[in-house]
Amino acid sequence: MRSEPRSGCAINAAVEVLGDSWSLIVLRDIVFGDRRYFRELFSLNDESIASNMLASRLRRLTDDGLLTREDAARGQRARYSLTEAGIQTVPVMVALGTWGMNHRRTSPELTVRARILAEHPELVSALMDELRETHLGVSLPDPEGPRASERLQAAFEAELGGS
Amino acid sequence: MRSEPRSGCAINAAVEVLGDSWSLIVLRDIVFGDRRYFRELFSLNDESIASNMLASRLRRLTDDGLLTREDAARGQRARYSLTEAGIQTVPVMVALGTWGMNHRRTSPELTVRARILAEHPELVSALMDELRETHLGVSLPDPEGPRASERLQAAFEAELGGS
Repeated sequence: MRSEPRSGCAINAAVEVLGDSWSLIVLRDIVFGDRRYFRELFSLNDESIASNMLASRLRRLTDDGLLTREDAARGQRARYSLTEAGIQTVPVMVALGTWGMNHRRTSPELTVRARILAEHPELVSALMDELRETHLGVSLPDPEGPRASERLQAAFEAELGGS
Repeated sequence: MRSEPRSGCAINAAVEVLGDSWSLIVLRDIVFGDRRYFRELFSLNDESIASNMLASRLRRLTDDGLLTREDAARGQRARYSLTEAGIQTVPVMVALGTWGMNHRRTSPELTVRARILAEHPELVSALMDELRETHLGVSLPDPEGPRASERLQAAFEAELGGS
């Protein structure tokens, strides 16, 4: 765990946990890439995270209560799951994605998802519900409809096809 | 200016600019504390920022296009202003404040504002319009009504009085 916070400010509290170059990138890969294991988080990362950096971020996010790590049986890989606090970083990522999309050079194909989420707040909530099901075992209110990830993927494909 | 981004991802683009321990804290003090000069940003900061850190953040935020620095006349202090890109970090701060408030120990009196902004999205837009007036000289659509900062302050006082 951590030492005392620098102040009682809520923005500072979040910056102390999430304000570095990699924590939100690792969370992004878990949320949007459905990567749950060290090896895939390492090898599929677009920003070429170093393995010792990834190990250190996973340890800190677990210590800070954003991830849980399932103890692996002998010969099995340890799997990471988001906690509720981890899932609730999704709106932070959406806000950051909106800013990045509007003020930085980005790749069109890597920006479609950010734009769709910025324009459809209900999809953000649905995605968070889906993460609660996948990571926390909480049943979705309506398990019959298409999942948020599927709707996001469909919107993504429609967007690419239509432009 | 900076070297090439680590990837074309919009979230990464924002993390590269804002993902450190201090940039958003300095922006917070400018946005919510209306501090425009080095001396007040330094001496009033709740997290005890070091003066060399503050100088380095102000320089980088200016280089990255989130702040402008007005050249000071001899004997006068340089004043910092938010750019449009700087003003558009407000929703990121609101999202971070919401997360910090819900998942970390914070001071009630430093959290009221985060809660009011989380609950009143229209106040976030009004605050950004007010910043456009103060920092960019853009006239407000309705200059007759109470300003967002006044509404925020009134809501803050009502909240403290009522609890």
